[in-house]
Amino acid sequence: MRNIAKMATTAARHGVGLRPHVKSHKSARIAQMQIDAGALGVSCATLGEAEAMVEAGVPGVLITSPVVSSNKLRRLVELAEKAGPRQLMVVVDDARNVAELAVLAARLAYPLDVLIDYHSGYHRTGVVDENAALALARAINDTGSLRLRGLQAYGGHLQHIEGRERRNTAAAQLSHTVARLVAALESAGMPVEIVTGVGTGTHEADAAAGVFTEMQPGSYVFMDAEYAQVLAEDGQDTPFETALFVQSTVVSTQADAWVTVDAGTKSFATDSGVPIVARGVNGPSSYAFFGDEHGKLIVASEHRPSLGAHIEFVTPHCDPTVNLYDRYHVVEGEVLVDIWPIEARGRL
Amino acid sequence: MRNIAKMATTAARHGVGLRPHVKSHKSARIAQMQIDAGALGVSCATLGEAEAMVEAGVPGVLITSPVVSSNKLRRLVELAEKAGPRQLMVVVDDARNVAELAVLAARLAYPLDVLIDYHSGYHRTGVVDENAALALARAINDTGSLRLRGLQAYGGHLQHIEGRERRNTAAAQLSHTVARLVAALESAGMPVEIVTGVGTGTHEADAAAGVFTEMQPGSYVFMDAEYAQVLAEDGQDTPFETALFVQSTVVSTQADAWVTVDAGTKSFATDSGVPIVARGVNGPSSYAFFGDEHGKLIVASEHRPSLGAHIEFVTPHCDPTVNLYDRYHVVEGEVLVDIWPIEARGRL
Repeated sequence: MRNIAKMATTAARHGVGLRPHVKSHKSARIAQMQIDAGALGVSCATLGEAEAMVEAGVPGVLITSPVVSSNKLRRLVELAEKAGPRQLMVVVDDARNVAELAVLAARLAYPLDVLIDYHSGYHRTGVVDENAALALARAINDTGSLRLRGLQAYGGHLQHIEGRERRNTAAAQLSHTVARLVAALESAGMPVEIVTGVGTGTHEADAAAGVFTEMQPGSYVFMDAEYAQVLAEDGQDTPFETALFVQSTVVSTQADAWVTVDAGTKSFATDSGVPIVARGVNGPSSYAFFGDEHGKLIVASEHRPSLGAHIEFVTPHCDPTVNLYDRYHVVEGEVLVDIWPIEARGRL
Repeated sequence: MRNIAKMATTAARHGVGLRPHVKSHKSARIAQMQIDAGALGVSCATLGEAEAMVEAGVPGVLITSPVVSSNKLRRLVELAEKAGPRQLMVVVDDARNVAELAVLAARLAYPLDVLIDYHSGYHRTGVVDENAALALARAINDTGSLRLRGLQAYGGHLQHIEGRERRNTAAAQLSHTVARLVAALESAGMPVEIVTGVGTGTHEADAAAGVFTEMQPGSYVFMDAEYAQVLAEDGQDTPFETALFVQSTVVSTQADAWVTVDAGTKSFATDSGVPIVARGVNGPSSYAFFGDEHGKLIVASEHRPSLGAHIEFVTPHCDPTVNLYDRYHVVEGEVLVDIWPIEARGRL
């Protein structure tokens, strides 16, 4: 809750909108808390996530990756109908995709809102230059059934650059490019009401720079070991607190130099290092993956937890770890106060 | 189906029982196919998996990791009641855990079956030597409510040793140790009706050696890139065929040197390398993770798949990849013939 309030305050102070990314928490309940704190809506990585959010009544959904294939485009138009006018936006980067979507969207009583996706130097999705953006904008304007609302420029590769100064320099370069792109589109008479992008890593610099009209950070809600390290350089505390933990149980104490916990590669994402003990061990310890179901918790004998002890870990990478679980156990101190479903888990 | 038949034939030829591991497929339907092919039952890594199997009517369930904490022990005893006599077994490696379980199991109308877990040189779970095994066997026999059925010795670390000869040598060493352990228990008057262990990697050597009475392989049903490589050394074909694929869609073709597919670190386990293209590209290609939702498929321009093309991948590591999905799409050739739930997904 403090993380949600802190990001909302930063955005409000700079007069920037906030459409936090659901890909991190995949929970309608947390999405609603973000909206209650002032967010315009939420960003979703996939059509399935967007369906889960609309189903749960979450407004203002932006899908941040192109939706491709006729089956999915049909589902997208059905979802736009269900969500209602101006409650669903999707990014596009391809003229053929725009044409296919436009035909299907013609059945809607209102135009379907789209944003042009710009590659932002990452070349993952998005048009690669000004000319491509202009051509796509014209194609959108020509459809009648789609309405161009603006631009997405998400620098996913910039969020995890270590060193605040290096990260902010990279963010400033992207902002500069995006500002020129916006100017080019507007000079050509294209509307650019929305400029969205920005993750947790660059949100301070981007909020201040004034190019983006909205930010779509996700990880700030939970934080993880990797992000905390990136944001904590220069010995400063990170602006956000770790709010996500995986609880495990010590299930074997037969080995001399370690105990075995029941959390392995099916319990944590493995792409960003190892989990870090947050609670349950009174002394130094280190975790190593020990197969799919187990972890090896190496700990000196004087700090050795007993069989059945609960050990809580900071996750190495929050987003794909959350995607392993069906629900959150919400705790205040030592008290379980609620259980929330993770509606969009597995909605790839 | 051919993989299931092949493993069943190998086991039958050597007169060894088969209790295939559910941790790989987490599906009651596949478990039933294995039982229909002659398996004694199934092995489960977690209490949750076992609950999902018993719920679906799958008989002969062995839980292959100690069940620890009073909550879980209660659930275990309830499950034993639901499963019926001789339909549930669990491994143990700790005297206190045995005592706690024995108290709860006293309410059952029949004894609860347990196996002593031996560490097998891996030291993940399991008693570490003969004396510890004997002491635990006596403790089990003294309870009245638990019945000692035998021993588990699973060499998880042996399954992936590269080189058939090296792997078989390691398996033979473990078999030798296990045979001595069995002799020691039997000399002390302890029953060792069941000796279980063995994975896909060592199943040929272990089936032939005659020490194990049952095998608990899992991955052979699906195979994955890592296992196929381990089993395919010496240029031989593996005895099993790859039967598990992840299908993705090309969602962006804006970059010059690659296309972007909608499958990233939320779609594949990342602990064993990268996915390998199985279908959808007519030429050499390589995949690189491109964030949580995307993959970078590097491919020469003459073989470039078009926007919306479906690309199928062999998974790097089948077990934790399966754990990301809620259902299998069952295909014969190009035809979708069924959809099966993955009942035990996320049952950590």
